Amino acid sequence: MTHGQLATKRRITQGRGFTLWLTGLSGAGKSTLATAVADELRRGGVRVETLDGDEVRQNLSKGLGFSREDRDTNIRRIGYVAKLLTRNGVVVISAAISPYRAVRNDVRREIGAFVEVHVKASLEECVRRDTKGLYARALAGEIAQFTGVSDPYEEPLAPELVIDTEREDVATSATRVIDRLLELDYLRGGPDA
Amino acid sequence: MTHGQLATKRRITQGRGFTLWLTGLSGAGKSTLATAVADELRRGGVRVETLDGDEVRQNLSKGLGFSREDRDTNIRRIGYVAKLLTRNGVVVISAAISPYRAVRNDVRREIGAFVEVHVKASLEECVRRDTKGLYARALAGEIAQFTGVSDPYEEPLAPELVIDTEREDVATSATRVIDRLLELDYLRGGPDA
Repeated sequence: MTHGQLATKRRITQGRGFTLWLTGLSGAGKSTLATAVADELRRGGVRVETLDGDEVRQNLSKGLGFSREDRDTNIRRIGYVAKLLTRNGVVVISAAISPYRAVRNDVRREIGAFVEVHVKASLEECVRRDTKGLYARALAGEIAQFTGVSDPYEEPLAPELVIDTEREDVATSATRVIDRLLELDYLRGGPDA
Repeated sequence: MTHGQLATKRRITQGRGFTLWLTGLSGAGKSTLATAVADELRRGGVRVETLDGDEVRQNLSKGLGFSREDRDTNIRRIGYVAKLLTRNGVVVISAAISPYRAVRNDVRREIGAFVEVHVKASLEECVRRDTKGLYARALAGEIAQFTGVSDPYEEPLAPELVIDTEREDVATSATRVIDRLLELDYLRGGPDA
């Protein structure tokens, strides 16, 4: 890498707390994108906390199932924790399927500083990837209420950004997320000195 | 207040994130003390988040009851949220009864930067105050599993501080908490300029 390239590399710094809400099917790439964005932000010294769907279920929602009511309760809990962190200046990245539009919009209202990103891949592609081996089981009828197979996924109508993980690689997606956050003035960036 | 008194008034500033964990019977004065300490810290620009037992139950633990298992689950959830905030530099004040010693110690280990304060008043005094009208109902047998009446309260064996709310007023107690936090190097303080 030449000196010139280094000089134009952005240095991202923190503006204020906000919640970056990734929503999409299981296997669409939410956790991977969350990690890539978090890494990039941390390099600039930004305080980032990632709330992964599985981890949060373990810590806050053990005992809840996958009915609409239980899913909504789980999402409200993530939203509550995200709100507390956000209002204390932390950048929160949520990576939960969050299939229902209404509760996502409730969480958006509750938090205020909220950026919704639809992490999008077709069901066919998610089934093909089957990162956790869950689609095979869901399609075989071994898991009930599986989003996209036997449970609905409601796409966001007006997300701040759509990331198509079938058409672009993780690095490109992470850059697009950062660009959007800069544009929305949640982050500040400038060329490195 | 004379100029001299003003000059010796402490200005409290933030060191690092930590959790101030208040434990004690219902009516012992946890929420009142939490508010007084939080106000004092905020005057110094410290980021403080108070996790009140009732509010957290509403947001994170709806559906949980008051069995030992459910109480412990509730406390673990508060501990999880406190950990996330603490490691992002926020001062967390928890004001939940948290009657069981073992789970309090688990939360202490999990969080690390943890200061346990036993907010202490005799059962007789709590019954006399009966701030929420709950003791009357518990003693009449209308509420089961009520801490101190029909459910145990395990006092901390080695809390960082004991506050006797029968013997001192709120302002004194808040000052003693701040003093202890300064002593433990969680806060920094100096005379106002």
